[in-house]
Amino acid sequence: MVNFTPGPSQLYFTVQDHVKKAFRDDIPSLSHRSKRFESIFAETAEGLRNLLNIPSDYFIVFTGSASEIWERSIQNLVEKSSFHLVNGAISKRFFEIAQQLNKRADKSEVPAGQSFEGILIPPDSELIALTHNETSTGVSLSMPFINSVRDENPESLVVVDAVSSLPYPDFDYSKVDSVFFSVQKGFGLPAGLGVWMVNERCLAKSEQLLMKGLSIGSFHSLPTLHSHALKKQTPETPNVLGIYLLGKVVSDFLRKGSHTIRKETEYKAAILYQALEKHSIIKPFVTNKNDRSKTVIVAECGDMTENLSAYLQGRGYFPGDGYGEFKKRHLRFANFPAHSKEQFEGLVDVLTTFQ
Amino acid sequence: MVNFTPGPSQLYFTVQDHVKKAFRDDIPSLSHRSKRFESIFAETAEGLRNLLNIPSDYFIVFTGSASEIWERSIQNLVEKSSFHLVNGAISKRFFEIAQQLNKRADKSEVPAGQSFEGILIPPDSELIALTHNETSTGVSLSMPFINSVRDENPESLVVVDAVSSLPYPDFDYSKVDSVFFSVQKGFGLPAGLGVWMVNERCLAKSEQLLMKGLSIGSFHSLPTLHSHALKKQTPETPNVLGIYLLGKVVSDFLRKGSHTIRKETEYKAAILYQALEKHSIIKPFVTNKNDRSKTVIVAECGDMTENLSAYLQGRGYFPGDGYGEFKKRHLRFANFPAHSKEQFEGLVDVLTTFQ
Repeated sequence: MVNFTPGPSQLYFTVQDHVKKAFRDDIPSLSHRSKRFESIFAETAEGLRNLLNIPSDYFIVFTGSASEIWERSIQNLVEKSSFHLVNGAISKRFFEIAQQLNKRADKSEVPAGQSFEGILIPPDSELIALTHNETSTGVSLSMPFINSVRDENPESLVVVDAVSSLPYPDFDYSKVDSVFFSVQKGFGLPAGLGVWMVNERCLAKSEQLLMKGLSIGSFHSLPTLHSHALKKQTPETPNVLGIYLLGKVVSDFLRKGSHTIRKETEYKAAILYQALEKHSIIKPFVTNKNDRSKTVIVAECGDMTENLSAYLQGRGYFPGDGYGEFKKRHLRFANFPAHSKEQFEGLVDVLTTFQ
Repeated sequence: MVNFTPGPSQLYFTVQDHVKKAFRDDIPSLSHRSKRFESIFAETAEGLRNLLNIPSDYFIVFTGSASEIWERSIQNLVEKSSFHLVNGAISKRFFEIAQQLNKRADKSEVPAGQSFEGILIPPDSELIALTHNETSTGVSLSMPFINSVRDENPESLVVVDAVSSLPYPDFDYSKVDSVFFSVQKGFGLPAGLGVWMVNERCLAKSEQLLMKGLSIGSFHSLPTLHSHALKKQTPETPNVLGIYLLGKVVSDFLRKGSHTIRKETEYKAAILYQALEKHSIIKPFVTNKNDRSKTVIVAECGDMTENLSAYLQGRGYFPGDGYGEFKKRHLRFANFPAHSKEQFEGLVDVLTTFQ
C-alpha cells in the first residue's frame, strides 16, 4: 500500500528503524535540559542548514506545528499590516490568522488553480505572506516570482510557507526572510513539529515591536526562541523524539543528496503530469504548466473521482481527496522523498489502465 | 536503570509496545481529517474523562505543550488582570507569561518550599492561577485549599497547573474551571503534547473577549479548539501519535484503576519521605508535612548533593537535579505511575546505605 495523501503522508522508509534506535537510546525520556538534547538540537539544525543551504544569518527553531508558525509570524513581525497572496484554502488561512490577531490584513486573491502576476503590494506592508505550494490546489510559485517580490518590496519582510514543498525547493534565502514547514509532509515523519527558519531582520523586527510595548507572545516569541536556540535548547519541553527523528531523516537525505532528491522529484512529477495530460478522462487541474507544483499534483477527475479513487485503492495506491469544495472533483497525489520512482511508475501504469 | 527526573521522566512500561502497534497500524501517517483519527481523539478524551472523573461540562483539547496552555489561558480568559500564587520557578513562569501578554498580573509570593495561607486575592482578578505541584521545590497545594479559593472568589476563573501531579490528584472539578498537564511526566509518555481540560465558563469568557474585539489568538483560541473538539478533531495537524499513545496509556491506567494508582503513589511517597526523615545526612526539603508533594519529592542534600547523585547513579538510580538555584543542594525524585513500588523500595534501600 502506498499513501499519496499530501500530509500526513507516507513515512520515509527509515523512520521506523530510527524510532527503534531512539527507544534503545532512551531518547523519548531524555531531559530537554541535558547535554545529549543539546547535541540532538545541534545535529538537526545543522543538518537542515546543510540540506537546504541555509545561510548563517538565519537561525532555526521548533514549534508544535506550522499553524503555530503562521500565528507566531504575524505576532512577531507585524505591528499594523500584512499582505497575503491568496490562491486557495491554505494561503487564505494565513490571511485569516492575521485578521484574528487584529492586524490589518490585505490580500491579492486569484481563483483556485492559478498563480499571480503583476501584483501591487501596498508599500506599508510589513510582512508579505507567500505560500510556495498551495496544498489545496497544487499551484506552486516560481522562484523568479518569489525573488521579484523582495526586489520590488525591499522594506517588507518576505515570509514563505513551504509546508508541502520542502525539501524540494532551492530557495535563494537572501531574497526572503523566513521560511517554514512541518515534518509530516516532505520529510516523511510523524506529525507534531513545525520548523521555522528566520533571519536576523525578523529577529530585529520582533525586538522593535517589543520595545514599543507590544506583546509578541511569551514562550515562543522570536527573541525567546532565538536565545534558547543559541544554547541549542527550546523554551518549553519540546517534541524531543520529533526533533531527533527529523535530524536522522535529514542525515538520510544528505547521504542521498539534495540534487538527487530534486531530480527524482522532477522525474516523478513529469511522468504523472504526462499521464494526466494524455488521459482520456482525467487531466491536471492546474492548466498553466509553469504554475504546476512538483510536490502536490492535483488531478481534475470530475464525475469519475469516486470511481477512480476506489480503482486506485483496490490496487494499493491511496490518493488524497480533493480539498474542501473540490472533494468530489479532485484527487491529490503527494510527491515527496518517501514516494519512490517505482511507486510513481506503478501509479502511472494503473492510472493509464483506468478508462 | 531507573530515571527519577521529574520530566521528561521514565516511560510507562507499555509505551514501546504501543509504539510498535502504532507503526503496524499506520497511525504515524494517518490523516487528522480521517474517521480513524476521530475515533482516536474520542478514545483518548473519553479515557481521560473516565480516569480523572471529569464532569460533562468540561471539554478536553490538545496543544503542543503545557507552556502553550499557560499562554492560551491568559490569552483566552483574561481581559485585564490575573492573580498568581507563586512559590517557585514554575508558578512564577505562569505569572511572567501574563505580564508578557500585557496583562496586569498580580501575585502572592512565598519562599521556596512553602505553601500558602490567608491569601487576599483582589476581587477583580479574572483568573486565579494555582500550581498544584510546584515541580521546582516539591510543594503541593492541598485539596481543601484549592477548593477554598473558589469558595472565596466565586466570580474568578480558577486555573490549575497539574503538570507534574496528574493522574494522582482527585480534583473536585466543580471547584475549578480549567486543569492542564503535559504527557511526559505522570503519564510516562514522550514529550510533545499538552492536555487542557476546560469548562463552559472558560469558553463563555473567551467568547465574551472575542465579542469585545480583543484577540484571543487564532488556531488555538478556545472557541476554535472547542468547535473542532465537538467534531473529535483538532484545528491543526496535531501530534497524532502522541494523542494515540496517551489514549493507550490511559487505557492501561484504567485497567489498573485510579484507586490503585493513588494508593501506590502514596505508599511510594511515604517510604521515601520516611527514609529522608530518618537519614543522617539528607532530609526532605519541604518541612511542613501537609505541603509535601506525593509526585515530586525533593531532598535537601547540601554539600553531599554531588556525591549522593553519583552514588545513586552508580547503582542504577538516576535522580533529577535540583531546579535552578537549588541545583547544587537538592535532588529530586519523580514518583509517577511509571515508577514501580519495587523501584522505590530499591531506591530507599540504596539511599539508606549512603552515609
